[in-house]
Amino acid sequence: MNSETASPANTSPANASPVTVVGLGLMGRALARAFIKSGHLTTVWNRTAATADPLVDEGARRASTIGEALSASPLTILCLTDYQAVRELLDTSDADLTGTTLVNLTSGSSAQAREAARWAERRGAGYLDGAIMAVPPAIGTADAVILHSGPQADFAAHRATLGALGTVTHMGADHGLASLYDVAGLAMMWSVLNAWLQGTALLATAGVDAATYAPFARRIAAGVAEWLPGHAEQIDRGSFPAEVAALETSARAMDHLIEESEAAGVNTELPRLLKAMADRAIAAGHGGEQYPVLIEEFRKP
Amino acid sequence: MNSETASPANTSPANASPVTVVGLGLMGRALARAFIKSGHLTTVWNRTAATADPLVDEGARRASTIGEALSASPLTILCLTDYQAVRELLDTSDADLTGTTLVNLTSGSSAQAREAARWAERRGAGYLDGAIMAVPPAIGTADAVILHSGPQADFAAHRATLGALGTVTHMGADHGLASLYDVAGLAMMWSVLNAWLQGTALLATAGVDAATYAPFARRIAAGVAEWLPGHAEQIDRGSFPAEVAALETSARAMDHLIEESEAAGVNTELPRLLKAMADRAIAAGHGGEQYPVLIEEFRKP
Repeated sequence: MNSETASPANTSPANASPVTVVGLGLMGRALARAFIKSGHLTTVWNRTAATADPLVDEGARRASTIGEALSASPLTILCLTDYQAVRELLDTSDADLTGTTLVNLTSGSSAQAREAARWAERRGAGYLDGAIMAVPPAIGTADAVILHSGPQADFAAHRATLGALGTVTHMGADHGLASLYDVAGLAMMWSVLNAWLQGTALLATAGVDAATYAPFARRIAAGVAEWLPGHAEQIDRGSFPAEVAALETSARAMDHLIEESEAAGVNTELPRLLKAMADRAIAAGHGGEQYPVLIEEFRKP
Repeated sequence: MNSETASPANTSPANASPVTVVGLGLMGRALARAFIKSGHLTTVWNRTAATADPLVDEGARRASTIGEALSASPLTILCLTDYQAVRELLDTSDADLTGTTLVNLTSGSSAQAREAARWAERRGAGYLDGAIMAVPPAIGTADAVILHSGPQADFAAHRATLGALGTVTHMGADHGLASLYDVAGLAMMWSVLNAWLQGTALLATAGVDAATYAPFARRIAAGVAEWLPGHAEQIDRGSFPAEVAALETSARAMDHLIEESEAAGVNTELPRLLKAMADRAIAAGHGGEQYPVLIEEFRKP
């Protein structure tokens, strides 16, 4: 991965730069707190001003207007409900954004991120889009993974400050990348969980409890994860020789999974989707190739 | 996991016990070869006798009848096309199976394994059912994971011999467990691969190649794998407090995954299945609970 990473350990009060946090929901408050704890002069703003009270008690400065908030620091973190809220807030402000850098950690799509970047550019602001792959209590620890995308120079200029929030990573210059990596990572997360639930439900019908099955599922998931870089080479080459096993062999084993799930009386939707995608790739003539040839099915709308 | 594991390193010629391998397809030949290499007196039998020729050159003894094969060793490994082939072969033989142990590594279902165990019991044979989670070239190395189920005493009596094949594990006394763990593990394998393919297809639309994306996917999969034992405790307790995040929060993020996939023009079947299952659990009143509450959907036919 072309990324640069900073983590909380890299930040020290000695080089702490002022920072503003706009939007003080559960996540915004966690972000502000992490900056305060790391010794940053932290300015906060929220539409409902009273929300800032506990943060002010902890050392934050309250801005009385959004304009004041934006001009208080070279870096402003935005954490609002959605991109429309960001746009409405900044459009109605006549604050001069020239020279400031916005880091937008509001949840949204890659298209929204790219559009926001164009808007920020017109206003003269630096802009990074970000995605928080963590829950509020993890913010400020290395467990909080925060993805950023946008110009490398903007990230480099503020990585020490952003590092107070968690493990911060730069995914690339395209502002849409943080959102794309985020949803791709979540797809992996849910898929591992669902496959584990499928197995847990199946084994439960033979009297195996979840705690007994989980270490087995963990080993398989961790083991298969190690194959991905090698499989990726096949995709980038566009060549899928069956070095280990052919897709049609996998498809036959998928029938076993469907049959066992049916016989056990558990859900068969996940097994059937696995099989349907493999069958289509086999019908397209790829049965003798290796599993990653399925990429061609995933590329189709 | 209640399991006992042996691996090739545990086997030495000094304690090598005679073993028979019946069925010399690609996998059966690999099994026979691993025994020969570990110093076991290895008897082989195949319906088409000439298939055994290269193994005989390597030191195997050829049995001229299936009865001779079965009586040659205290342990016989069966590796045939399917369970029907196993049954037909052993039913037509009048060999005395009393006191011998059969380890059936033929691919099949948990129901077939249990039925075969009952049949073997009637014939006076010990019986273990097994599932090979490896490709033939890996046999004889620690990378070859082979699951066994059946009476613990039968496994213990032959684990040193079986250890020549790879990392052999005992999953429990129920003869169906090896098959169930096998398909559950495969469901995890395919799910990790498909989630990775979904992300790879998505990121490719932003110009990110598969090799760049793969390490990110690997870290997510390996990280989520570590959560499974903790999540399993919630399932065994039947209590799913939203300690980290609520299912309804995940469901909203699933909409982002669907939208990004649609916008990028890649397949949306996996994202839609994830969302459909979460939506059903939310409709059943579980939106405020944690993700593993989805087990209730997976338990339904």
